[in-house]
Amino acid sequence: MLLKTKAQNKLKSIVGTTNVLTSKEERYCYSFDALNSREQGKLPDSVVFVEFQEQVQEVLKYANLKKIPIVARGAGSNMVGACLCLDSGIVLNFSKMNKILEFNKSDMTIRVQAGLVLADLMKFVESQGLYYPAYPSSYKIATVGGAIAQSSGGAMSLKYGTTKDYILSMKVVTAQGEILNLGCDTIKNSTGYHLAQLMIGSEGTLGVIVEATIKLIPKPEYKKVICAYFSDIESTVSAVNSILENKIIPAAIDFMDKNSIVTVENYSNCGLNMSADTMLIMELHGDRISVENQNKKIINILNSANAFEIQTTDDNEVIEKIWGARQASYSATTRLAPDVISGDIIVPRKNLVEMIKRCREIYDKYNLKMCLVGHIGDGNLHPQIALNIDNDNEYKNYKNAQKELFDAVLKYEGTISAEHGIGVEKIDYIDTFISKEVLGYMKQIKKVFDPNNILNPHKIFKMNE
Amino acid sequence: MLLKTKAQNKLKSIVGTTNVLTSKEERYCYSFDALNSREQGKLPDSVVFVEFQEQVQEVLKYANLKKIPIVARGAGSNMVGACLCLDSGIVLNFSKMNKILEFNKSDMTIRVQAGLVLADLMKFVESQGLYYPAYPSSYKIATVGGAIAQSSGGAMSLKYGTTKDYILSMKVVTAQGEILNLGCDTIKNSTGYHLAQLMIGSEGTLGVIVEATIKLIPKPEYKKVICAYFSDIESTVSAVNSILENKIIPAAIDFMDKNSIVTVENYSNCGLNMSADTMLIMELHGDRISVENQNKKIINILNSANAFEIQTTDDNEVIEKIWGARQASYSATTRLAPDVISGDIIVPRKNLVEMIKRCREIYDKYNLKMCLVGHIGDGNLHPQIALNIDNDNEYKNYKNAQKELFDAVLKYEGTISAEHGIGVEKIDYIDTFISKEVLGYMKQIKKVFDPNNILNPHKIFKMNE
Repeated sequence: MLLKTKAQNKLKSIVGTTNVLTSKEERYCYSFDALNSREQGKLPDSVVFVEFQEQVQEVLKYANLKKIPIVARGAGSNMVGACLCLDSGIVLNFSKMNKILEFNKSDMTIRVQAGLVLADLMKFVESQGLYYPAYPSSYKIATVGGAIAQSSGGAMSLKYGTTKDYILSMKVVTAQGEILNLGCDTIKNSTGYHLAQLMIGSEGTLGVIVEATIKLIPKPEYKKVICAYFSDIESTVSAVNSILENKIIPAAIDFMDKNSIVTVENYSNCGLNMSADTMLIMELHGDRISVENQNKKIINILNSANAFEIQTTDDNEVIEKIWGARQASYSATTRLAPDVISGDIIVPRKNLVEMIKRCREIYDKYNLKMCLVGHIGDGNLHPQIALNIDNDNEYKNYKNAQKELFDAVLKYEGTISAEHGIGVEKIDYIDTFISKEVLGYMKQIKKVFDPNNILNPHKIFKMNE
Repeated sequence: MLLKTKAQNKLKSIVGTTNVLTSKEERYCYSFDALNSREQGKLPDSVVFVEFQEQVQEVLKYANLKKIPIVARGAGSNMVGACLCLDSGIVLNFSKMNKILEFNKSDMTIRVQAGLVLADLMKFVESQGLYYPAYPSSYKIATVGGAIAQSSGGAMSLKYGTTKDYILSMKVVTAQGEILNLGCDTIKNSTGYHLAQLMIGSEGTLGVIVEATIKLIPKPEYKKVICAYFSDIESTVSAVNSILENKIIPAAIDFMDKNSIVTVENYSNCGLNMSADTMLIMELHGDRISVENQNKKIINILNSANAFEIQTTDDNEVIEKIWGARQASYSATTRLAPDVISGDIIVPRKNLVEMIKRCREIYDKYNLKMCLVGHIGDGNLHPQIALNIDNDNEYKNYKNAQKELFDAVLKYEGTISAEHGIGVEKIDYIDTFISKEVLGYMKQIKKVFDPNNILNPHKIFKMNE
């Protein structure tokens, strides 16, 4: 149901008339995020562009009073439906709260608004000789707030960790409209419970993040990227393990499988070797001499592990192209079928070969086209499934395959989200991976922060089960 | 009051007679931890040595039923009274739960019991070519469980982060005696709320940690330590900032001030230059060539910043001696007066000079002997105050000085604990640094996990204020 005129007028009085979208056409795109699924969002009643934290507070106070669901939204690039309105409500659009508020060069920290696009953050900090490494592949559109809400990782997490390792403090608006300052803008902090860490990955269900202070690191002095092609998955994983066992921690060890290589190459003609079963992409950071040393050692390891083609480059344009190819995997896969669903599973590296084999078996069994990419150094796989979700049979196959995949993830001691979150897409499996007791505590914490269940309801877990 | 015989018998039936200490003599040492303060602990009613998680569960179920306070204790090396019984109760002694349960070399993870001493963890992982960098200065006695409970940092946090960055998962016993498996043994995880992160730094008030899986990193290939002496604090901090601005992140940048240098030198005759105002200790990690490159750059920076004496070494025995001198600061300071209280404050580096000057002024004003050491690269200072806490006047001066110190910490945008915790020592100041609203949420979370307030009560904050 559309909010009544009185409610719409209230919202307009808080943020201004032009900041409230009410027409069906304007609201339509907000019934999607990057998840392709039948578990689709409803049209939100209103889309409210916020510009100041006081407006967020006022909207939340009103929504809490009237028990209207609130879904905070950055770029909507989320892969699990975390930005969807499931029973109508208000979308808070943060795209106008995208400012850099304070840069502290000597402490290497930056305070920004939640709607800042990660690429803009990165461009700014790199212009200052600094670096933000915890960016997801969607950094060109994804926002800081979204990355915090979903606990994003990315290719560089192998060496540098994920979003949670870079957020020193944040400003959060509660369901009641209070402002909470969580954490402290110091490098370490052991003053009270780590509530900022609790907010990270809570997918907008505990509070609305309006600001964050981010820790930065020096920009890597020198970069080198190595691509290596293999004929089978055993050699590939053995190369990855050897590199790490030789005490080399590259910034990234990513991979693409045969389907992904072929699909991307057909899409963008970027020179990938289509005869390979798998391709590793490794990025090395450091001073030139130590990167060159690591490069030499890695090439030896790759040769011993039967890589049949190895390319290295320190040309930034070529490096960008290589990552462009890897990041194009999702877009390229959309050419194979009307829809693509991107998975996100992770297992300990010791179980990686078995997990990858099982993953391929499962999608073969269900006759689904699957391009497999991922941050293989972390044990993190993104199976990208091309299908037509409106085809009943294909969709049923997808759901059955997902079940078998998650059974395997359980067997191989992993979990069903490394860096995308649970959202609605994986909500039916949360109790397979998190015990009833632990879920019970999560639900009680949810009630503490959001007694009326207005903050992104029906995400992560079902409150009444 | 001593628990009645029936209660003592119940505890003996759970853990065995020899695992329950009841005599006054045996319990006496448990009324202390490493905090010297008049806010002393009471004698616990019983000290219970646990050997299995099932025993922890049984004790907690019983304690919860009878509303008996439970204080989990590792080595008792805590500096803020977090291990003290304030209104009697049971101390759970974890020294017998000190086993390494599982080592996963290819994933570089290790699962251990909470009572494992950090030095034993470090010795084992180093024998495997790996490294655990988040150790506090007290690592020779401190336990894994204690480090998690207090969110410990240490000298190597500058490059490597703190305890929270290395705990992948943990097993926690709740007040109700349930077992919670929090987190996942994968490098990344975005499946549900980060409750493991909530437990880290919660000082035993939300649950009793019995196990943890820890992420390890490769052992540094090569180490070099640089010591540099300065005539004033401005030059010292300017050197620190220049090193970091030149994109060199040493593993550690620690410091000792004049009082600390003189006190340690008089105590251990280890060759420190007593004419200096401050001394920096920097440790570099990496491959030999890049460490030597960094070393050269740092020496240039130190010279430009007017360091008047610079020593470098890659001899591991000498390196151990240097850190031994730094870590001896606390023990040495105990020679100056009957008691020493070690502080733990942190400010952004941009305010470090002012904070250090103010710190010195304050203790001078109150005529208290203060040896200042700390992890200066992080902005983290440990003023070690030598006094006689039984001397009313000195103790009053200490308390007044603490108040002025914390006023300055607030002014300089820092916080009152970087890595020790709040415990009882800083409980009166928690509401200066954390807002009433945020504290309100912390208290509600405490109630969710511990409705009868039996888990380490009266620590971090006062429930009824």
